[in-house]
Amino acid sequence: MPSLLLDKEKCLENIERMAHRAEQHRLSLRPHCKTHQSANISNWFRDFGVSKITVSSFRMAQYFARAGWNDILVAFPFHPGELKSLQILSEKCLISILVDTPAALPFLNHIRNPVGFYIDVDTGYGRTGVRTENPELIEQIIVKARGNPQLHFKGFYCHAGHSYKVTKQKEREAIHQKARSDLAGLKKQFSEHGPRILYGDTPNCSTQNDFRGIDEITPGNFVFYDLVQLSLGVCRQEEIAVVIECPVAGKYNHSRQIVIHGGAVHFSKESLTMGGRTVYGQLVQRNENGWSSPVQNTWITGLSQEHGVLEKCGELFNQVSIGDTLLFLPVHSCLSANLAKEYGTLDGGRITNIHSN
Amino acid sequence: MPSLLLDKEKCLENIERMAHRAEQHRLSLRPHCKTHQSANISNWFRDFGVSKITVSSFRMAQYFARAGWNDILVAFPFHPGELKSLQILSEKCLISILVDTPAALPFLNHIRNPVGFYIDVDTGYGRTGVRTENPELIEQIIVKARGNPQLHFKGFYCHAGHSYKVTKQKEREAIHQKARSDLAGLKKQFSEHGPRILYGDTPNCSTQNDFRGIDEITPGNFVFYDLVQLSLGVCRQEEIAVVIECPVAGKYNHSRQIVIHGGAVHFSKESLTMGGRTVYGQLVQRNENGWSSPVQNTWITGLSQEHGVLEKCGELFNQVSIGDTLLFLPVHSCLSANLAKEYGTLDGGRITNIHSN
Repeated sequence: MPSLLLDKEKCLENIERMAHRAEQHRLSLRPHCKTHQSANISNWFRDFGVSKITVSSFRMAQYFARAGWNDILVAFPFHPGELKSLQILSEKCLISILVDTPAALPFLNHIRNPVGFYIDVDTGYGRTGVRTENPELIEQIIVKARGNPQLHFKGFYCHAGHSYKVTKQKEREAIHQKARSDLAGLKKQFSEHGPRILYGDTPNCSTQNDFRGIDEITPGNFVFYDLVQLSLGVCRQEEIAVVIECPVAGKYNHSRQIVIHGGAVHFSKESLTMGGRTVYGQLVQRNENGWSSPVQNTWITGLSQEHGVLEKCGELFNQVSIGDTLLFLPVHSCLSANLAKEYGTLDGGRITNIHSN
Repeated sequence: MPSLLLDKEKCLENIERMAHRAEQHRLSLRPHCKTHQSANISNWFRDFGVSKITVSSFRMAQYFARAGWNDILVAFPFHPGELKSLQILSEKCLISILVDTPAALPFLNHIRNPVGFYIDVDTGYGRTGVRTENPELIEQIIVKARGNPQLHFKGFYCHAGHSYKVTKQKEREAIHQKARSDLAGLKKQFSEHGPRILYGDTPNCSTQNDFRGIDEITPGNFVFYDLVQLSLGVCRQEEIAVVIECPVAGKYNHSRQIVIHGGAVHFSKESLTMGGRTVYGQLVQRNENGWSSPVQNTWITGLSQEHGVLEKCGELFNQVSIGDTLLFLPVHSCLSANLAKEYGTLDGGRITNIHSN
């Protein structure tokens, strides 16, 4: 059956590169673990001095706390459905949450242990967060939170996710500089609280070189990268550390189509437009060390629950037989990894994740 | 956290309705279990006389065999990567596979127990299967398979999935009648082998009334239905038996956006175009019995890993508060269910599935 394969060397190089960037810019690295969701992989970061992590749900926080992490940020606006999980976790480790409205604070009135909170701010992405144009609301949150002795204001968090909407480095830099200067402004304006500035998304953390005012970065996807990041010009093709290995299940002479065992329950339905087509994965050349370059114009262009379809795949059609396996770069590695119960490595090893039994 | 909720009554009604249609048209019902992937739900079919099932992977076959099913069709073209699983399963139960090329047969040479096979035929969908225009290839498969005493030709299988590409009943009927008459033709042409005709996709099985020549139907999605089926005119809104319950995590006055905890890892990135927008789920009204109608023009229009975004949601914006939960119909229930570790029921019960620990 299809499996997600990891090139551990590439993965370690991606971690090292980001750790080096952080060091170079005097930033703490608090990697986001939502991409790999693996205790095993999270431990690889420890060798680079990482001692705190970011996750996107309390379920992940519980999993990583069990794995020994004791400084965890749940980078999702807190809502009262998570209160019980928060209570349990805050007994075991240093847990921080995001708040972007005073309306969330009353739900935290009865927490029994210290909890840190960051104010989620929006510098233009438009998903969650207090707009940086609205410091009055930030002030309201800080003042209201002061009434809760267990709740500690730690600083500001920003995910400038609109970096995913642009492909030119100049446009990305404009997004980054707006975010950076807004955050630096907040740091100054609220300096009496000594706020830490947390910032991060893989496109900006991988490519920017001016982090003045920022204390800590929280990128996640860079550990694997994927076709989205490649298409944005954020990573090089040789930095993508995951492929999905899929058996060839069908070959059809009349249409010259190949059908693989590898569908939406392996890749996810995340798609990209490439060469005018909707694509779900791109073939890579296999070699003795794993894989090399993506094969031009050779994409999965149809995807149902278990089936993937390759049309117009040129010479490949003549080269493959039923039962061969092919390797594909995923469009969005976070979502593909979330569908895997474990990851394989190139030397035949197995890496467990949050979904492993 | 977000959870998939099941209205068991609606689900049972959907099963009963399909069982009744099968009875009315003198068809066996071999439901596809890839939608629910739950032993518990599969057992609900037993009360309607169902004794055999369809699945789309050997992993599912193993799961349902452990749950006591002993006549299982793996409706995916067989490839040699599954040989080991096939050997193990064929010791325990009656297992059937799909074959659509003579090239798959040599891999079955050393099976130790009887295995049934259906020839997957393509009446126009263009995914897998021998085209019905190519009976010579069918003949080749049957002849070649005869050399293997453990391999038993059972009949023909057809998934006319192009029924998902049309919205008018007349167009769907044309697809169905082409498939039905092609299949009836094969039944006659290969009558010396007494082939059974297996056919099924939810759109056709839910709406057609002429099944002459067909012996057995294998629909799956009908157990839950979803927005795709509703948009195709295949089900009524009150027949959709699943919703995803999502906490409200953010409300943003300036944009009048609501952000829910409910993202691509809960809904899947399957989308529909509705009202000119790409949507990932539609709000339903909650009532004392569960939920009633979909709320017009109130869709999830943005979806990241854990976040869902509702824009332009009118009065709803004023009605909801942080921590409220909202119910959404999924676009594609098979993929949403595949992302859930268990399902909740309206009375607070829990239903396990293949992903439950």
